[in-house]
Amino acid sequence: MTDRRLDAQVRIVGSGLLGASIGLGLSAQGVDVVVDDASPATRALAIAYGAGRAPAADDAPGLIVVAVPPDVVAEVVARELERFPDALVTDVASVKHAPLEELRARGADLSRYLGSHPLAGRERGGAVSARADLFVGRPWVLAGHPGISYRRAAAIEDMILDLGAIPIEMDAADHDRAVALVSHAPQLVASLLAGRLRDGSGAALGLSGQGLRDTTRIAGSNPELWVQILGANAAEVAAVLRPLRDELDTVIAALEDPDAPDSRRAIAEALVAGNTGVARIPGKHGQDKRYTALVVKIDDRPGQLARLLTEIGEEGVNMEDLRLEHSPETKVGFAEISVVPEAAHRLAEALEQRGWTLMEAER
Amino acid sequence: MTDRRLDAQVRIVGSGLLGASIGLGLSAQGVDVVVDDASPATRALAIAYGAGRAPAADDAPGLIVVAVPPDVVAEVVARELERFPDALVTDVASVKHAPLEELRARGADLSRYLGSHPLAGRERGGAVSARADLFVGRPWVLAGHPGISYRRAAAIEDMILDLGAIPIEMDAADHDRAVALVSHAPQLVASLLAGRLRDGSGAALGLSGQGLRDTTRIAGSNPELWVQILGANAAEVAAVLRPLRDELDTVIAALEDPDAPDSRRAIAEALVAGNTGVARIPGKHGQDKRYTALVVKIDDRPGQLARLLTEIGEEGVNMEDLRLEHSPETKVGFAEISVVPEAAHRLAEALEQRGWTLMEAER
Repeated sequence: MTDRRLDAQVRIVGSGLLGASIGLGLSAQGVDVVVDDASPATRALAIAYGAGRAPAADDAPGLIVVAVPPDVVAEVVARELERFPDALVTDVASVKHAPLEELRARGADLSRYLGSHPLAGRERGGAVSARADLFVGRPWVLAGHPGISYRRAAAIEDMILDLGAIPIEMDAADHDRAVALVSHAPQLVASLLAGRLRDGSGAALGLSGQGLRDTTRIAGSNPELWVQILGANAAEVAAVLRPLRDELDTVIAALEDPDAPDSRRAIAEALVAGNTGVARIPGKHGQDKRYTALVVKIDDRPGQLARLLTEIGEEGVNMEDLRLEHSPETKVGFAEISVVPEAAHRLAEALEQRGWTLMEAER
Repeated sequence: MTDRRLDAQVRIVGSGLLGASIGLGLSAQGVDVVVDDASPATRALAIAYGAGRAPAADDAPGLIVVAVPPDVVAEVVARELERFPDALVTDVASVKHAPLEELRARGADLSRYLGSHPLAGRERGGAVSARADLFVGRPWVLAGHPGISYRRAAAIEDMILDLGAIPIEMDAADHDRAVALVSHAPQLVASLLAGRLRDGSGAALGLSGQGLRDTTRIAGSNPELWVQILGANAAEVAAVLRPLRDELDTVIAALEDPDAPDSRRAIAEALVAGNTGVARIPGKHGQDKRYTALVVKIDDRPGQLARLLTEIGEEGVNMEDLRLEHSPETKVGFAEISVVPEAAHRLAEALEQRGWTLMEAER
């Protein structure tokens, strides 16, 4: 509670998932949060959930967070800049170049505007889905521009840190290119793939597995919101999808003539490219390539895993990741311990000396 | 142990993930399982994991399960049919029409062959990833054909039920059309999308979120295996991808001219179609339904996780699964602990009393 950096009244305009989550997170740390929304009912709901308090005549926000749909971001930011001439204003829309240009065209005071974008969300929107920890550990882009006063902008970074997120400075155009690649194009591809399922028989759909569920999960997203996001970042998204379409054409041609000399190679190249691409995603995704995995056999007895981790600690090795593999019917399990490659060999020897059984880690 | 239906010696040819998992599951129920593999080292590993025993001269299998790569399925099935003239033979390859036709062309005794396909798997292959419960609750297709004697085929259904899977009868061609839609085309689409990530900057990839991870997860699959699968089901996969390509063309055209009268509608239609399609996938998305997940915040300090697991043990709760989520840039991580639903509430309270911070599990 006492560690918070932010020391200003915060006004949140738009109390959907993001606005309400910011309000919840800041309110929990004792910040004076004012919640506003074009819809009184939506605002009342967010306040009832604990996102903040209703506006008052003498509000004097130091920081304003505009969390409204992309299509109206620039309009609302411009209005807030005018209404509160001492406040710093940010927005949290997932497109950053178009709102900045629109504000510039409107002649808004850009020295007090710094757009931002928290890379966080949930499938379900609205204040009912809000959570104070939505941003913990997530990147939060600050889309810098030449007009901003960075001394004034410190409050935004304070807020991001108070919410547990990681501030990342990025030019608005670079940001839009990045999210086209890692978010907007994947959204459309997932939607197009899921759209194919309309044609399937019930028996076919009955064979669905986790792979299909994962691949199409984000196809459940809100179309109204995504039409706005994709429309505002259309050129960058198209630039990702065009080469994908060309590679899809190549793969379809290969599948239509699978015995042609180059067909298997064409399909293999697409699969290998996928391996290469997915390995570039940082963080936890299957197995992290930066680390070496040791697979240790553990009995399915209470305390076995705790003992293993204690002993790894005693060896002075930092465990970077851990996965459990076990089979309820076999009374045996495996702990896959990821460590830096330099430590792997020594740790393996030490664990074997301590009586653990290590298995060959495949892949 | 005593409830099992299968009452025959089972010979498993090919001891990768599927073969070894079948062996583990049947061995745990007391079935006499013989494990064979073209590679003696692979066979030895599967036997060491408990998948069964080595072949002997007087083996008399009643049921043979061929679990080898798709390209050699028909050849190995034909050889096993000849070598064991009293045995029923099945295979577990993910394509069913091509092997059947090849066996027919070879003049194999189809009255003793019934192809099958368990819809189960893992990202990682090999006996080291095998688990006895891999098939529990999963569909397992029996690809019937006019030549099979259904009275003889009962042993296959017994095995499927003993492994906890759900037998589904389906014509080989219908099966191949179904898996093209729910598995093979999604694999290629995920690979093509992940392939785009090769071009992204490190900063762009740093903005990756769970949506991208999910959408591209299966792009980490084994290219050698998938080239075989896709080659064997090429026409059906192409039939799914062609209309997807046409819709992708429409979406790209709309993005290239986002202010044209029909552009927003075209994008919205693709998104709404995705909503409709994903809603057709049966079952719920996400984690294992048998367990409830508790997400516990842990500091990135040595011994923290060991202490957590020790304390869970002290509470007398059996941990069914464990996943770690952590962000290298924040000194904080999350342990997702899966427990039986009956124990979840009590454990959550106990951990909070012990000073741990629990997060809402859903995201």
